[in-house]
Amino acid sequence: MTNVNKLEPLRTVLFESEMFEVVSIEWSKTIISEMHSHGWSQCHVLVQSGVFENYLDLGLKTETAIFETGQVISTPVGSQHELRCVSDFGKTLHIYMPRRNQSVGRKNFRPQMPSPLLENLNLGEASTFEQTQKILQLVKNESITTDSVFFMNQLFSGILPQAILAQDIISKTRTTLATLEASPVFSAIEQHVVQSLGQLIGWADCEGVNVPGGSAANFMALHCARQQKCPDFKRTGFDHRKFKIYVSSEAHYSMKKACMVLGFGTDSLVQIAAHENGKINSASLEIQIIEDLKNNFEPLFVCATSGTTVHGAFDSISELSVICNKYDIWLHIDAAWGGPAMFSEQLKEKMKGVHFAKSLTFDAHKLFGANLTCSFFVTSQKNILIEANDVSGADYLFHDKDMDRGKMSWQCGRGADAVVFWTIWKNVGTQGLSDFVSRLLKVRDESVAWIKKQDRLDLIVEPEYLNICVRIKPHSPETLNWSMIAREKLIDDQFAMVNYSKDKNGPFLRLILAHPNLEFKHVKEILSEALSVIGPA
Amino acid sequence: MTNVNKLEPLRTVLFESEMFEVVSIEWSKTIISEMHSHGWSQCHVLVQSGVFENYLDLGLKTETAIFETGQVISTPVGSQHELRCVSDFGKTLHIYMPRRNQSVGRKNFRPQMPSPLLENLNLGEASTFEQTQKILQLVKNESITTDSVFFMNQLFSGILPQAILAQDIISKTRTTLATLEASPVFSAIEQHVVQSLGQLIGWADCEGVNVPGGSAANFMALHCARQQKCPDFKRTGFDHRKFKIYVSSEAHYSMKKACMVLGFGTDSLVQIAAHENGKINSASLEIQIIEDLKNNFEPLFVCATSGTTVHGAFDSISELSVICNKYDIWLHIDAAWGGPAMFSEQLKEKMKGVHFAKSLTFDAHKLFGANLTCSFFVTSQKNILIEANDVSGADYLFHDKDMDRGKMSWQCGRGADAVVFWTIWKNVGTQGLSDFVSRLLKVRDESVAWIKKQDRLDLIVEPEYLNICVRIKPHSPETLNWSMIAREKLIDDQFAMVNYSKDKNGPFLRLILAHPNLEFKHVKEILSEALSVIGPA
Repeated sequence: MTNVNKLEPLRTVLFESEMFEVVSIEWSKTIISEMHSHGWSQCHVLVQSGVFENYLDLGLKTETAIFETGQVISTPVGSQHELRCVSDFGKTLHIYMPRRNQSVGRKNFRPQMPSPLLENLNLGEASTFEQTQKILQLVKNESITTDSVFFMNQLFSGILPQAILAQDIISKTRTTLATLEASPVFSAIEQHVVQSLGQLIGWADCEGVNVPGGSAANFMALHCARQQKCPDFKRTGFDHRKFKIYVSSEAHYSMKKACMVLGFGTDSLVQIAAHENGKINSASLEIQIIEDLKNNFEPLFVCATSGTTVHGAFDSISELSVICNKYDIWLHIDAAWGGPAMFSEQLKEKMKGVHFAKSLTFDAHKLFGANLTCSFFVTSQKNILIEANDVSGADYLFHDKDMDRGKMSWQCGRGADAVVFWTIWKNVGTQGLSDFVSRLLKVRDESVAWIKKQDRLDLIVEPEYLNICVRIKPHSPETLNWSMIAREKLIDDQFAMVNYSKDKNGPFLRLILAHPNLEFKHVKEILSEALSVIGPA
Repeated sequence: MTNVNKLEPLRTVLFESEMFEVVSIEWSKTIISEMHSHGWSQCHVLVQSGVFENYLDLGLKTETAIFETGQVISTPVGSQHELRCVSDFGKTLHIYMPRRNQSVGRKNFRPQMPSPLLENLNLGEASTFEQTQKILQLVKNESITTDSVFFMNQLFSGILPQAILAQDIISKTRTTLATLEASPVFSAIEQHVVQSLGQLIGWADCEGVNVPGGSAANFMALHCARQQKCPDFKRTGFDHRKFKIYVSSEAHYSMKKACMVLGFGTDSLVQIAAHENGKINSASLEIQIIEDLKNNFEPLFVCATSGTTVHGAFDSISELSVICNKYDIWLHIDAAWGGPAMFSEQLKEKMKGVHFAKSLTFDAHKLFGANLTCSFFVTSQKNILIEANDVSGADYLFHDKDMDRGKMSWQCGRGADAVVFWTIWKNVGTQGLSDFVSRLLKVRDESVAWIKKQDRLDLIVEPEYLNICVRIKPHSPETLNWSMIAREKLIDDQFAMVNYSKDKNGPFLRLILAHPNLEFKHVKEILSEALSVIGPA
């Protein structure tokens, strides 16, 4: 729909305050509201007469529906909508709470410092609730606008109405997932999301648990692998045996942390050199394993990455699974970022053989827009979670021995994070998640085609996923840092927030395509601006 | 304020739908609204004429304020209020969004099974946003009502408007605490809460970080202690050295999990028998340490509990600190539940010597009503968090080397949990948190006095804190289980949810006093009902 007419002349404000606003609007068939949200205010529209078509943009999907006299059109927090009168005349009553404002499209990628807010963080004296609300509004305004399409810095972007709705329920039910008794519904939801992920992977049966972040999921994988190989260690701790854990040199740093925290030591971690495209060199891995076996190390664990942080590369799971099978090694897939490939017809080939793995990390807070953090550890190895994590000594808490999900975790009290991803998935459907990936792949393809035509830009690698790595071509040793300089300027100018990384040729920009409303034009705008802030070649 | 007159006759509903409701009310000086909330709907009242006094119950505190013509009275989600006209006449316009309902006071401690909801959890097909909202409403209704004063099952109860407000901001700003760049304000807030806790403890300087739950905080403590004692282990992992970790037999089971996960093995954990009152026997601890040293173990870590889960007992920190000092052992305080004692004039003696400890666990989601989870690990040992947790290999992420808080954690992406506790503390003030503890202690004292007068009830131990352990006296071996039977009946009848534990004489009830609106009458009602469901002695 396109804009036909502005609505302002027909608006009558009935009541008005900072906290709410009631507006009556008279419509005719020629009038369409522009696509708009109301900042973060709730909005409800009562159709007093006439028939209206409402186009609702819910981030990962859109809905169009017809509303007649007496019905209410609700625009959930975080969404946008466009309203059109399809009868000759119509009348609507609009309520905004708080008053609608124009925060949408606002960009804040580098707050001005020193901020007066930072001087007001002190705790001690009480304040009124109104003062507290005001300071939180300031907190919001001075925070990075990760809801902007120009926020491409992290492996997440955008804020979904489904996630806000789900988190609202979590706030209002405040309970712990540790026991079935305290969270019967949430326990069932967590279990259901885990089973659904297991089905997608292709496991006949599986277990899993929400964990606080992808790093925690990777830890859990190594922890379970150790439990399976050395059941006694739970009781005795490490003995003289020395293990080796393998990842690619492009893997997430959390495996290194896992080796450190779990007591293996970072020396146990072997980083196998990746190919230039970011994928692990499977042949090198096998050579290394043979070498380690000769030196009396025990190869315990291989972590394949599906979607590396920098290049978005996918290790070949099929190749790795053959090796792991041969040497009896636990194969884990870190699909924190790339997991959504399993939902996509176009990408699922990249994770071929995933069902051969024993466990997988999936972050719903990355591409799929859940709250931070909403991570899952799932495993095909029945009972390993309880074997690895359950201890005696909590009989005061765990009365339903077979059902309490706390026994599968090393955490005790846990929030109901799973509800957020469940809500998103429930609302959008499996097909909707797949379509979302496809839409972004299309943006990627258009962007890559355009980049290749630019003399001053170098595509670092043909992207497999939703990471675009691109360098502003330096023309002398002094301009090697151009990509980094441009990145800082884009942020300083509140234009866009993209990240950078480095390879042997110096820094390059990394753009993450994750925002539901992202279009090719945004990528083009950002890269054009990056070139322009650098100045002529 | 007491109820003078009902308002119904003067209410005029102007607009009405499931999603919102606009009501006009005419007042005179004799009219007071009853104390009420609006379920979970937002409510704003515009004063059209007259002068009103609004009494607002915000859980941990109340506010009274005068509103005049043109001003708006807002009742935040999760609060209750009472409105009174102080002028001769007045007129107000009320907006509820969604429509107000009577969910307050609802109790659901055992959902009816099988629930139709559980058959509708399946993921696959998309649903409309309206359907999604409806199913989430069902999720809410079938969840345990932890906001009820009769929910005394867990170490938390009640839902605060401050927490809901703060979580709303977290939802709408969705970012990670890992880097300063992505969360400049939240990083400052986390740092500020940590410093404020450190001041309360009495440390000249401190460091700390939000962790996902009290168990995770205890893990971090042991992890830091290992790092300080064996800096090489980070790289090499465990060698032949064998350590001992000490807790009381009444300590939380998370220390056992920590020994297991971190690779020490649960055999490393020594549980020192507690006195009957639940406090650790310090003399036994020292004897055990001497014995372990003789056997070539290295005593590494003592975890003192401030507020045990069952009895609410406080270990003597002063005694333990002398021992730890003597044998060069890291002293950690698990104050997940009892930490609020530090805020209370009446209780702070219980944690005397806390500043001698090297680290402390504090859960703001327990007594102080933050979201699950909102836990802090704080330590007096500067730099130990970075030494223990930082690894190379994340240069793509950590650009602000000195400030990125992710380097102090083994997590990568982390939610801004600290904002919830900061908001509560900011709104209520240090004095308000102290007053809250005092109010509950008064409820406890009245309850204990009453219990002691009941022939059929046995107080298990004189409570130090907000746990009341009480047994329904059995009169034969067959009735040993009376406390447990009563507990199940209270739940089945949707009357109350209390927990139970066991000692050598059998099961007993554990009532946790944590709800902001809890009064002695509620405790009396629950215990009277418990006796009545058992029947005559």
